[in-house]
Amino acid sequence: MMKLYWSPRSRSFSGLWLMEETGQPYERVLTDISTGAQKTPEFLAVNPMGKVPALKDGDVSIAEASAICAYVADCYPEAKLAPPIGDPRRGKYLQWLFFSPGCIEPAIIQIFTKIDVPTSTAAWGSATQVFDVLDAALEKGPYLLGETFSAADIMIGSGLNFAVRLFKMVPPRPSFDRYIDACAARPAFQRAEKIAAG
Amino acid sequence: MMKLYWSPRSRSFSGLWLMEETGQPYERVLTDISTGAQKTPEFLAVNPMGKVPALKDGDVSIAEASAICAYVADCYPEAKLAPPIGDPRRGKYLQWLFFSPGCIEPAIIQIFTKIDVPTSTAAWGSATQVFDVLDAALEKGPYLLGETFSAADIMIGSGLNFAVRLFKMVPPRPSFDRYIDACAARPAFQRAEKIAAG
Ligand SMILES: N[C@@H](CCC(=O)N[C@@H](CS)C(=O)NCC(=O)O)C(=O)O
Ligand SMILES: N[C@@H](CCC(=O)N[C@@H](CS)C(=O)NCC(=O)O)C(=O)O
Repeated sequence: MMKLYWSPRSRSFSGLWLMEETGQPYERVLTDISTGAQKTPEFLAVNPMGKVPALKDGDVSIAEASAICAYVADCYPEAKLAPPIGDPRRGKYLQWLFFSPGCIEPAIIQIFTKIDVPTSTAAWGSATQVFDVLDAALEKGPYLLGETFSAADIMIGSGLNFAVRLFKMVPPRPSFDRYIDACAARPAFQRAEKIAAG
Repeated sequence: MMKLYWSPRSRSFSGLWLMEETGQPYERVLTDISTGAQKTPEFLAVNPMGKVPALKDGDVSIAEASAICAYVADCYPEAKLAPPIGDPRRGKYLQWLFFSPGCIEPAIIQIFTKIDVPTSTAAWGSATQVFDVLDAALEKGPYLLGETFSAADIMIGSGLNFAVRLFKMVPPRPSFDRYIDACAARPAFQRAEKIAAG
């Protein structure tokens, strides 16, 4: 059984939502970051970055929320959280999965810290560009791959829910509102929210 | 045949190195960012972020350097650039692939802009932490997965080569030097360097 290391009210929400979407049994290991549990030698052996979420599958430990999504989605093909290798939707699926740490996270940091980085150097261009591109991608919806929900929606949906709805760092747009509503209507999202509330 | 959109002296080096590692024929589409070629309507249809690298495989277009690595490595299993699904090394492979945009890129931005973000909030902790964790992971070597070279080394090897050797933004360490040397000794890396020089 896979083990998910998580903490209430943290980025491990995406891990909880993911595991709930698989429909597979998993073990939750509470690693409360408000108590420093993420800096114990036991946990640092799982993730030397001392951060949640982290996953153990047998002897293998995996960190980075998007990597956990990519890994788990491919391990449980029946859950249909990733277009399989060879499926024409696989490329866009991967693009959006990497867009989350590669563009959305730094765009939020830019909003938060007001740093000025030349758009042609910055891997994310600018915060405006990131949210314009995402807006266009979500215009049709309901999900990033159209009718097909995928693990990329778990990363981008929880990122937008956090940045637009919970922390109001990114101005709402009609496409974002529709998208967050579609994500939040999923029973697995709602189960994860209950767990994450602690 | 896959088409790689690239520009001299840019992040598309990783795309060139990747395609050279596959041993498969591919088409290179010069998209010189010094002339604004990345902002033409034709190219924006391939990557709305207006950035290189980008890839086309038939009708499918894919952006984000690490996503291109993940995609191509799985498309050409004979090139052995990714442990297959089910292989116990798959988890760490994915973790390192996402560590590049998720932790190394923002650590470099932090060094460049001197921003101060609380380590427990920042997805990358701190620049020191990122390079300490990478140092420990590369202690055994020669590659991130030990003897097995993978597409994760393409992302992290080109990132370190850039940040440590070319731009001297990150202080050298013995493990980084050995690693960059091992990467740079690969014939595919050297072919890519020649092409990227323009
Ligand atoms: N790059 C990581 C970021 C994870 C992260 O920053 N987690 C925070 C909680 S939101 C954490 O564990 N902070 C505790 C700490 O660093 O001490 C990922 O994508 O999983
Ligand atoms: N997140 C992107 C970053 C790509 C990127 O920033 N490319 C730069 C060159 S190093 C670029 O095309 N800049 C031109 C521009 O933005 O106008 C990736 O990982 O591929």
